[in-house]
Amino acid sequence: MRKFVAHRAKSLITNATAPLLNPHHHQSSSSSFNYYYTSRLARFLTSIASDTSMASDKSTPPLTAQSLNPKVLKCEYAVRGEIVSLAQKLQQDLQVNPGSHPFEEIIYCNIGNPQSLGQQPITFFREVLALCDHPTILDRSETQGLFSADSIERAWQILDQVPGRATGAYSHSQGIKGLRDTIAAGIEARDGFPADPNDIFLTDGASPAVHMMMQLLIRSENDGIFCPIPQYPLYSASIALHGGTLVPYYLDEATGWGLEISELKKQLEAARQKGITVRALVVINPGNPTGQVLAEENQRDIVEFCKKEGLVLLADEVYQENIYVPDKHFHSFKKVARSMGYGDKDIPLVSFQSVSKGYYGECGKRGGYMEVTGFSPEVREQIYKLASVNLCSNISGQILASLVMSPPKVGDESYESYSAEKDGILQSLARRAKTLEDALNNLEGVTCNKAEGAMYLFPRIMLPNKAIKEAESLKKAPDAYYASRLLNATGIVVVPGSGFGQVPGTWHFRCTILPQEEKIPAIVSQLTEFHKKFMDEFRD
Amino acid sequence: MRKFVAHRAKSLITNATAPLLNPHHHQSSSSSFNYYYTSRLARFLTSIASDTSMASDKSTPPLTAQSLNPKVLKCEYAVRGEIVSLAQKLQQDLQVNPGSHPFEEIIYCNIGNPQSLGQQPITFFREVLALCDHPTILDRSETQGLFSADSIERAWQILDQVPGRATGAYSHSQGIKGLRDTIAAGIEARDGFPADPNDIFLTDGASPAVHMMMQLLIRSENDGIFCPIPQYPLYSASIALHGGTLVPYYLDEATGWGLEISELKKQLEAARQKGITVRALVVINPGNPTGQVLAEENQRDIVEFCKKEGLVLLADEVYQENIYVPDKHFHSFKKVARSMGYGDKDIPLVSFQSVSKGYYGECGKRGGYMEVTGFSPEVREQIYKLASVNLCSNISGQILASLVMSPPKVGDESYESYSAEKDGILQSLARRAKTLEDALNNLEGVTCNKAEGAMYLFPRIMLPNKAIKEAESLKKAPDAYYASRLLNATGIVVVPGSGFGQVPGTWHFRCTILPQEEKIPAIVSQLTEFHKKFMDEFRD
Repeated sequence: MRKFVAHRAKSLITNATAPLLNPHHHQSSSSSFNYYYTSRLARFLTSIASDTSMASDKSTPPLTAQSLNPKVLKCEYAVRGEIVSLAQKLQQDLQVNPGSHPFEEIIYCNIGNPQSLGQQPITFFREVLALCDHPTILDRSETQGLFSADSIERAWQILDQVPGRATGAYSHSQGIKGLRDTIAAGIEARDGFPADPNDIFLTDGASPAVHMMMQLLIRSENDGIFCPIPQYPLYSASIALHGGTLVPYYLDEATGWGLEISELKKQLEAARQKGITVRALVVINPGNPTGQVLAEENQRDIVEFCKKEGLVLLADEVYQENIYVPDKHFHSFKKVARSMGYGDKDIPLVSFQSVSKGYYGECGKRGGYMEVTGFSPEVREQIYKLASVNLCSNISGQILASLVMSPPKVGDESYESYSAEKDGILQSLARRAKTLEDALNNLEGVTCNKAEGAMYLFPRIMLPNKAIKEAESLKKAPDAYYASRLLNATGIVVVPGSGFGQVPGTWHFRCTILPQEEKIPAIVSQLTEFHKKFMDEFRD
Repeated sequence: MRKFVAHRAKSLITNATAPLLNPHHHQSSSSSFNYYYTSRLARFLTSIASDTSMASDKSTPPLTAQSLNPKVLKCEYAVRGEIVSLAQKLQQDLQVNPGSHPFEEIIYCNIGNPQSLGQQPITFFREVLALCDHPTILDRSETQGLFSADSIERAWQILDQVPGRATGAYSHSQGIKGLRDTIAAGIEARDGFPADPNDIFLTDGASPAVHMMMQLLIRSENDGIFCPIPQYPLYSASIALHGGTLVPYYLDEATGWGLEISELKKQLEAARQKGITVRALVVINPGNPTGQVLAEENQRDIVEFCKKEGLVLLADEVYQENIYVPDKHFHSFKKVARSMGYGDKDIPLVSFQSVSKGYYGECGKRGGYMEVTGFSPEVREQIYKLASVNLCSNISGQILASLVMSPPKVGDESYESYSAEKDGILQSLARRAKTLEDALNNLEGVTCNKAEGAMYLFPRIMLPNKAIKEAESLKKAPDAYYASRLLNATGIVVVPGSGFGQVPGTWHFRCTILPQEEKIPAIVSQLTEFHKKFMDEFRD
């Protein structure tokens, strides 16, 4: 032991006079001291303080669930939870033993995964991706016959933006600069306000970006993140994993899932009373699971509230292309803040975007970005460091993120077919949303707000007391019980409202609007038939 | 406040009798209680305990680096650190103002990123990826002329493995089952022992897999992870981010970076004396940054040590294809454990593999997997939950991971060209490693072990005292000073040894063997000339 301490001491002496490699210049905080040595230093000091009193039996405990990180144990993610496991089991049953259930197939309405239900990718996007994957065919004559002229041109443009045309190389940790230029130009065209490519961080879908911000902001369980209830469970999962506290604000179902500033004030005050430091406000617009589109006036109030209270505004804007009603429009929070006169330094704001949603629905490509504005250079540097620890996001996803923010334009060879594909998907989604919404509202004891946007309906079910008692006797949440009965009867997979949070004593489920249009009538009749029987069975 | 508490209480009452949605069946631990309510419960109880004493001013602090998560501030990642920022600055200088520095280009030897330095991707892999990205061309006659017959056949096979042929859909959170079957078959062929596709978790490169295991195992700073010193800084960064303690074991430079069991025992004892629970042992084989390949006998001892001490063995095996000396061979730790008679339940073992390394070097694709064996079903379920929170890894990366574990075989149309590409790359890497190793050993005061494998050399430099003093006066680690001088003089980017950890008082740098072969002679002469001048300048 003495030798060990001497060795440690030597190391400290050797290094104390030489402040060590700091990969992040312009920095003079405690972080400028190399982790490895900082950590050793801390350990060394601990060891001096505690060597005599510390029990020496620290042998490694058996690896059981109980010995794991309790934050991991706490975390739940309903969208891929119990109900999906049951669905996968039933699907296997059907494969092995067709006819073993009263339905022919599982219809996954649990997750916004359009291509899993038959939505076709946008041809232009895939052409460009294929050409960037295998650029050696770009010069071949056969390629002209197989690919549109503008996809070939775009692939060349992109390759010229990739250093060394190396699509198989790690990129800059924020993503390839040329692609960020394209994305910034797309944001500028969307918002009418400038966007800086240096504010863009390309990520493997929006989820890692959300995790990164939670990791950055949460210091302990005394740090709170404001989230809408109902919320998308990524937020509750990420807050749990990073050891913070989810501070709820309730959306008002009666006013179409309205977001009231009075509710924000009330909940902020309540959280602060309990010693919670609320650090950021998550807004999901269009809403998930609730499908509402915020009015610009409401967005202004939210910006003003964040400004006044010093909250980081985390704007989940991944459904920005998914709007189905003519009287609502998407306005990015950055545009709203800028139009209020707040400049780049006035309000810390992160906008999340993803290639998984919109009319493209390229979930499997794991592309996305966050636009980060209003942070000091020191904080930005820490975000960059977090990005750099994972090296970079995948290049195909990066390319696709640039494509969705810069699709074909009038005059391009692909423009007409691209527009037809895009409009076909969005118009069909609008029709499906309306049909399902109407069908749900026709069910006994069910009310369903309009899906103005996003990909979901979140109907409320007034479950009979008998059904609630039955669920309780099975140790299930009542809405989880309803969802499992629905699945067992029809093969339709929805997610119980309890996975998203809801006003206590109310019950909901989230159902996507994504099954292909020709299947909607059958889904409606199966759902209607099931619901009628369920209500008959449990009617009080 | 009273209203708020009443509301909370109501929620608790409402929910207390209905244990809520638990997405993970077969589970009866504390994790079976829905996070959202658990968290609310905890908060509620805290609030009762502390409402009277808690100061009510918890208004949000200004967002400064000091108010961020201290774990993030602590974390360092040298591979993309200060020296790389300097290199990027110099590169911009050269673009704007050619001739502004005494070199024409920046040569990035800091990171294992082969394609950024001109290595070409394996044609067969890229053909298959392009066809899977844009499958509508598979039936077209022009495609026959552009793509090899076996790439077309393989693309069809893969599409048949993808549910609905939807490469744009989220997959199973562990990755597409059919691709995991292929990977398991590849592991079986490599090891001669069975592999189970259900043990495979496909990930966006190896880094997220490492983070996942750290997140799972680390509960607090009293949990330690055993890491080699020198280590790949992903490990120190990930341990810092998850709030654990890096417990070092020193590789023995004198015996070619030997891994001695006596050192493991000594350091384990020392850590336990200080109250650290060591949970896992990281082994990097072939070594990064050290390039050694472990002997099978040594691996057996390591397995035995982990078994005896109850440590999870985290085997970083991403360089398994990168071996350059005829007398050394790669043996996976799983194969070694199985050959010792340890079965699937005897030893918790995670093997990390990546598409970024090997002869393929597809860093930008972010593909990889971990093979997880020897964990209880309860622990496995927690790993699955962590995977599911990020939905899935990118599908192109998943496909590529299946391809590298199942490349063309004798008789396939692509086999000869594939073999020629593979052998060409590996043989050239071996020659480059030898040339650079010899050149380094020819420098005054430099000794360099053999690069038996991986992509790096890690020479030791005996820096003159005068140089060390000069570095100290500039508040730089001496090896960081050497590296920045090297960069400024030659454009060659290496990473200082202090970013990896080293025996205190010794100085090293990591240099990749990846610059294209025709550039190696110039690099050797630039390095030699710089080093001579540096030593002349500072000779004691």
